[in-house]
Order: sequence, then structure tokens, then C-alpha cells
Amino acid sequence: MTDIEPSPEEVEVLRQQLGDEAEEMGYHLNPDIGFTRNLVRGLLLNEGRYGYHSCPCRLASGERDDDLDIICPCDYRDQDLNDYAACYCALYVSDEVLSGERDLSPVPERRPSPDEREKTVKGFSAPAGESLSSLTYPVWRCKVCGYLAARDDPPGVCPICKAKAERFERFI
Amino acid sequence: MTDIEPSPEEVEVLRQQLGDEAEEMGYHLNPDIGFTRNLVRGLLLNEGRYGYHSCPCRLASGERDDDLDIICPCDYRDQDLNDYAACYCALYVSDEVLSGERDLSPVPERRPSPDEREKTVKGFSAPAGESLSSLTYPVWRCKVCGYLAARDDPPGVCPICKAKAERFERFI
Amino acid sequence: MTDIEPSPEEVEVLRQQLGDEAEEMGYHLNPDIGFTRNLVRGLLLNEGRYGYHSCPCRLASGERDDDLDIICPCDYRDQDLNDYAACYCALYVSDEVLSGERDLSPVPERRPSPDEREKTVKGFSAPAGESLSSLTYPVWRCKVCGYLAARDDPPGVCPICKAKAERFERFI
Repeated sequence: MTDIEPSPEEVEVLRQQLGDEAEEMGYHLNPDIGFTRNLVRGLLLNEGRYGYHSCPCRLASGERDDDLDIICPCDYRDQDLNDYAACYCALYVSDEVLSGERDLSPVPERRPSPDEREKTVKGFSAPAGESLSSLTYPVWRCKVCGYLAARDDPPGVCPICKAKAERFERFI
Repeated sequence: MTDIEPSPEEVEVLRQQLGDEAEEMGYHLNPDIGFTRNLVRGLLLNEGRYGYHSCPCRLASGERDDDLDIICPCDYRDQDLNDYAACYCALYVSDEVLSGERDLSPVPERRPSPDEREKTVKGFSAPAGESLSSLTYPVWRCKVCGYLAARDDPPGVCPICKAKAERFERFI
Repeated sequence: MTDIEPSPEEVEVLRQQLGDEAEEMGYHLNPDIGFTRNLVRGLLLNEGRYGYHSCPCRLASGERDDDLDIICPCDYRDQDLNDYAACYCALYVSDEVLSGERDLSPVPERRPSPDEREKTVKGFSAPAGESLSSLTYPVWRCKVCGYLAARDDPPGVCPICKAKAERFERFI
């Protein structure tokens, strides 16, 4: 397999797009721009190799189904940003890192081993006796896009698809 | 009733707005710009006729309550994009159509007949025995806007209203 | 305590940011720009005083935990916009106010008293007998960011983090 080297323009276009999407969620790309460009280059190389943006810091299997959890942003990014203020690669960082309040530190690998991934059944304990009728707010559903919001009344405009309040229905 | 012909500027402003909103959701307006302008013109004509953007490819009753499901984007758009890569009008198309991977094909009318619409009670079967305590993640609620997210911890920033993590409460 | 007067540039930057965020949710800043600048100045003064944007129209305690519900946007904004077409300060207004269909009127204080805030346990009555298996749509969860949508199939792209449909799992 011969890797196709992405052009600086391709790297820059993707870096901009990922940066914009991160900012909308309250995250940031790593401000070390050389470091970030290198990771974005890795995403593009993986796209050429496998057909998808698998994580540049992990070894992909090349089987899409087995790699789904490490297509960037990976299933572990948000949790790592929460616990370590950065994702495993340090491509994404939190406010605290950007403002200098917190230093980057190594992020341990959170991805389960292949065996564990297969048998993992996530579970958490809801408070005992909790049922739909014990919820504190009704849940409204946008009939256009399926957006859910828990509040006394539906939002005036769906924040996702911009449908008006009249397009919401009581869901729970 | 005399229709008020919208100006080319009005058509263009609405086309831009609908296009921006579609892109944010991962959809696209039909790239045939003449075709798309004609549909947007239809939306503006319907606004003049009825007071709302009813679907340009369906006959509206003129009673807002009866037409709610076909105010564009209609209640059927997302499902049609999923199944046919385009909405009923082909105003909205999916990535696959834009990239040429998939050709447009006629989209059958999914809207129930007036009689069926009245009696329709949607239902689906949740896996037997499912209850709140069997969910795989806790659900967090933004106290400012009602946004819900199912994850180990609340997001750092509400993606809808930008409130910080401290404004989230455990909902389920 | 000596207040630090924010510069007109700081006021303008925050006003623009809050305006953009409001528009995305279908709200607007008060079109009286002098009035709005004064409220935004109040937010910046409170940031200097307390370290957070507490509501410029309410007296903050200075204890972050006690003031969380009145950090702007406050927990009461959306409900007030729904009922009175404006928030308590009239910093945020609805479409109807912007278009002149509705005049601004005083918005009564909805915030409970300190005693009431402590003992408040929100509750609402779900329809009797409602359970997860009586919901009208399945709920899909984005494995990357936790976004939830109630619809027949997952969205093509997560509207929050842009992950593709394949990253969604059935949640309910």
C-alpha cells in the first residue's frame, strides 16, 4: 500500500472544518498548530488507507466495523476531555488548556481491548423506583427532526431544524 | 385570490437561508439551482396564499391545523431522505445525491390520507422489560434550555444554548 | 470593591456573541441597542465583581452556587420568552417583539425566594400508565456526544458533533 500524501491545502481545509465544529461544541483544536496539522495529516492518510478518518494515534484494523469507535471524533473523546482536558491524541483540548489554566498531561488509553469490546454491555443504575411518571419535566419531540427537550413548554423554534413550536408534540 | 409574485431577491434570500440550515443538519438543497429556485418560489407563493410555507408539491387545504405536517420542512422529509436520499419534492437531497453516488428517483407519497391522519396513533415496540433503570447511560438536562444528552457526565458546554456543565442536572 | 469599567470594545464583542447565540436558538437581543449595550455592560461588571455573568437586573449573592440559576442566560429565560415574549431583563426578546406584533410588558419575577429554592422539588404528571414501551418512537443516541433523537431511524449526521448515522445506537 502506498500512502497518498495530502496537500497542505487539504490539511488546512480539514483543520478549519474540525476547528469550527469543535468551537460549536465548546472545545478547541490544540493551539500548537504544527502539532495539529500533523494529526490532521494523519486523518487524511488514514482516509486514503482505509476510507475513513480513523484516529491518527491508534492502529486501525482496516475493518470499518471494528474501527467505528475510533473514527475521529472517537467514542472516547468527550469523556477524555472531561477527565483530562484533552482527547487521547491531544487533537482536541478544553477551555482550561487553551487559557493556560491546565497543562496537558498524558491521557491513558480508555478503549477496551478487542475481547472486552465484544462483551461490553454498558449499564448504570437509575435511582431506585424511578419511572417516567417521576421525571421532573415533560419531554417535547420535534416532529420534523426528532429533537428532544425537557422543559415546561416546547422551544419557540427547534434549535436543530428551525421548525416552530407548533411542530413539537409531547413525547413523555 | 391573486398570487403575489415574489421578487428574485426574496427567492434568493430564502434559498440561502434554507441552504445554510440544511448544511448544518448534513443535508443539501438540490444542486440544480433553477429547479431549487422554482420550489423556493413555490414556498413564497404559498406563504402569500396561506400565511405559511406549505410544501410546493402538495395541495394545501389552507387550514393551518390540517396543513401543519406539510409545512416545509415537512414531517416526512427526514424519513424520505433516509429511504430515498431526497424529500418528496427533491428540494432537499442527501450527500449521496450531491456526490453523484446515487441518482434521484421518484419518492412515493408517504403522507397518510386525511382519514388515516386523524386516527393514526404511532406506536413502536420497546424491547420487553425495558425500563428507565435498564438504560445504558444517565441522561443530563440543561436547566437553561432543556437539551438532553445521554453520557457519563454532562457536556462541558450546552451545544444548544452554551450554558456551562454546572447548569446541567441529572434527568434520568 | 472597585468596579472595572469594561471598554466599549469588550461590550461590543460580547453583544455580538450573545446575539449570534440567540439567533441560532430563534431568539433575538433587544433591538434597542443602547438599552442592550447597557445590559451587556452589566454582565461584564458582574463578571469583574463575582467572576461570572450574573443577571444584570437581579442582585447576586456573590456565592456562585447560590447564583447559578441567574447566570445569564438564566434558568427562567426560556419560560419568560414563552409567556411574556421577553426575559426578565428584556435583554432577550422573541420574534413577535422584533416584528412589532407584540409590545414589551413588565415580566414578573419568576425566581423562587431563597427558602423556596431550597425545598423546590419539581414534579409533573406523566399520563397514567405511561412506560417506555408506550413511547411513539425509538430514541437514538450518538455514541460520540450523547445527542438523543426520537425518530424511526437515526439522523444521517449528528447535528451536534457531525458523526455519521453509523455512530448512533438504539437507546430506548
